[in-house]
Amino acid sequence: METLTVALAERSYPIHIGAGLLAHPELIATRLPQNKVAIVTNTTVAPLYLASLRRALETQGVDAVPITLPDGESFKNWETLNQIFDALLQNRSERGTTLLALGGGVIGDLAGFAAAVYQRGVPFVQVPTTLLAQVDSAVGGKTGINHPLGKNMVGAFHQPLAVISDTDTLSTLPARELSAGLAEVIKYGLICDRAFFEWLESNIHRLVQREPEALAYAIERSCANKAEIVALDERDEGQRALLNFGHTFGHAIEAGLGFGVWLHGEAVAAGMVLAARLAQKLGLIGTEEVSRTSQLLSAAGLPIEAPELGRDRYLELMGHDKKVKGGRNRFILLARIGEAFVSEEVGQTALADVLGGPQVHA
Amino acid sequence: METLTVALAERSYPIHIGAGLLAHPELIATRLPQNKVAIVTNTTVAPLYLASLRRALETQGVDAVPITLPDGESFKNWETLNQIFDALLQNRSERGTTLLALGGGVIGDLAGFAAAVYQRGVPFVQVPTTLLAQVDSAVGGKTGINHPLGKNMVGAFHQPLAVISDTDTLSTLPARELSAGLAEVIKYGLICDRAFFEWLESNIHRLVQREPEALAYAIERSCANKAEIVALDERDEGQRALLNFGHTFGHAIEAGLGFGVWLHGEAVAAGMVLAARLAQKLGLIGTEEVSRTSQLLSAAGLPIEAPELGRDRYLELMGHDKKVKGGRNRFILLARIGEAFVSEEVGQTALADVLGGPQVHA
Repeated sequence: METLTVALAERSYPIHIGAGLLAHPELIATRLPQNKVAIVTNTTVAPLYLASLRRALETQGVDAVPITLPDGESFKNWETLNQIFDALLQNRSERGTTLLALGGGVIGDLAGFAAAVYQRGVPFVQVPTTLLAQVDSAVGGKTGINHPLGKNMVGAFHQPLAVISDTDTLSTLPARELSAGLAEVIKYGLICDRAFFEWLESNIHRLVQREPEALAYAIERSCANKAEIVALDERDEGQRALLNFGHTFGHAIEAGLGFGVWLHGEAVAAGMVLAARLAQKLGLIGTEEVSRTSQLLSAAGLPIEAPELGRDRYLELMGHDKKVKGGRNRFILLARIGEAFVSEEVGQTALADVLGGPQVHA
Repeated sequence: METLTVALAERSYPIHIGAGLLAHPELIATRLPQNKVAIVTNTTVAPLYLASLRRALETQGVDAVPITLPDGESFKNWETLNQIFDALLQNRSERGTTLLALGGGVIGDLAGFAAAVYQRGVPFVQVPTTLLAQVDSAVGGKTGINHPLGKNMVGAFHQPLAVISDTDTLSTLPARELSAGLAEVIKYGLICDRAFFEWLESNIHRLVQREPEALAYAIERSCANKAEIVALDERDEGQRALLNFGHTFGHAIEAGLGFGVWLHGEAVAAGMVLAARLAQKLGLIGTEEVSRTSQLLSAAGLPIEAPELGRDRYLELMGHDKKVKGGRNRFILLARIGEAFVSEEVGQTALADVLGGPQVHA
């Protein structure tokens, strides 16, 4: 087991990464304020891991109430959030009850946000079971739900007590979701870790084949990069924006197609290619670096061409992005592979070039 | 104008109290990160103060979008909260937009919670227009909404940038709501300010008659007492529980009758009489102090007898109180008028005595 720390003063917490961690409930139990948890999970994950996690917690004297939600990004909304509150109140869960998010990014975001606002805040623990959640969404304290007019428009910063990433859970992950997670893994290489990007170019096939050691290394490097950035900028007021490389385009893709049609990681992959092309149009990087980006994403099983929604629709959708400041879009641009920066000076011409024509193609 | 400070390190903020403050938009404008606000108000307050506040802000170059909600405690729920998000997103409000709560406690709680979670947190300013909001709910950063199974069960701690209490707005307040505000005013005297309680005994008629100087003094004393307690315990983990004197009973009354049937202050008034009787049963205070409490509340135009819901129903409703810890109810008890403390050692017999018979009376 590897353990990293997200350094946030009194809100610091460990990320444990390794095989078989679900059989180590003491990693969770020792951090609880009371021996009561509510396990928030979904109908896909529950049959795989809920019973064994619950039994393991019971051996530690922890009473666990299960709350099983429908599975999918389209359920990341008020109605599903309210199902958590209903269950907590029906069980008379008190302020000392800890919510435990067992699932992917949607479960982590929903359970984390429920924990942020139930009785004005209760503790929570992340137990991510998808690669995307293990390398990204479970780390850093961003929680929230979608609104019909935009993704993650309602939420809170709420740091977990701990993140427990059991790499064994990736064995049951559909291939499409494994690839979606690799999009965020590749992102860390692009924005701040050139050596890791090069390691990924050489080892992407091992990740796609789910070699446990390669996966554990990729998760650890990803979490270490993310933890460093989050420690510098917990509330997303500066440096943390770099983590959104490709995400302004990606969110527009997700919203434009309707949430849940493309996976988040798929939209980010195509978004990162657009972002790389934008950097190239602006003369920051060469075509070779754009190609290396596309090739690595493609080798990870990810889409590298954005759906054709039309330039005007993209610009409209991007107007709702949370990174908008004073009516202008900020962009995360690549200076080179392994180094990104924030720009508010992106010209409309370059942007229009990258987004294609104004109308949807026939 | 009097100005107090809620001392919370980097989250400290001023409370301005005085006549005619709505005509001083610079109190708001100088604190905004951007010249953009959304004024959240309701259908009762909007015709009275919205247009003039909006014009005043415009003279300071502040662009103000109005969001007018239905009026009443029964609208303090998800659906109304979502109306705020819908309006903000339709107006493409960004992270620098400040929400401005213009109204009573319900508007402050709704707008404050919306500000806490819109795009994971935007600033807000409290402009309370009821006595209850000016002396209690607008100060201290508690925000939230109700759930069918309990009051304020979903919410956040989110401190405002400033509180602007224009005492002129109390001239349009219905008498019943003025009295409801006086319940919380009297509470401060009971829990921590004996001299103020005695001042209230001598001056309650001046408050009921809305003498401006008496009202301003009562608001200032109330805010000073609350600010001191909040500064000691922002997150409600200790001292702040004293502010809930009478509220465990009061919340049960509100929930038992259905939210909105009794005003919050009315329920708290009857709840404080129950709490005083409980202290008397426990031998902490004498019958004379219970009488003085009832008499002052009654002179303020408040109910002093709780509705007869039956003892068992009260106990059931109190089980959902946020102050419950480890399955036991904590109670705020009076040591004497002007001094309260938290107890987890209240016997069932004394409690049953105070709550009356197990069944609803015919």
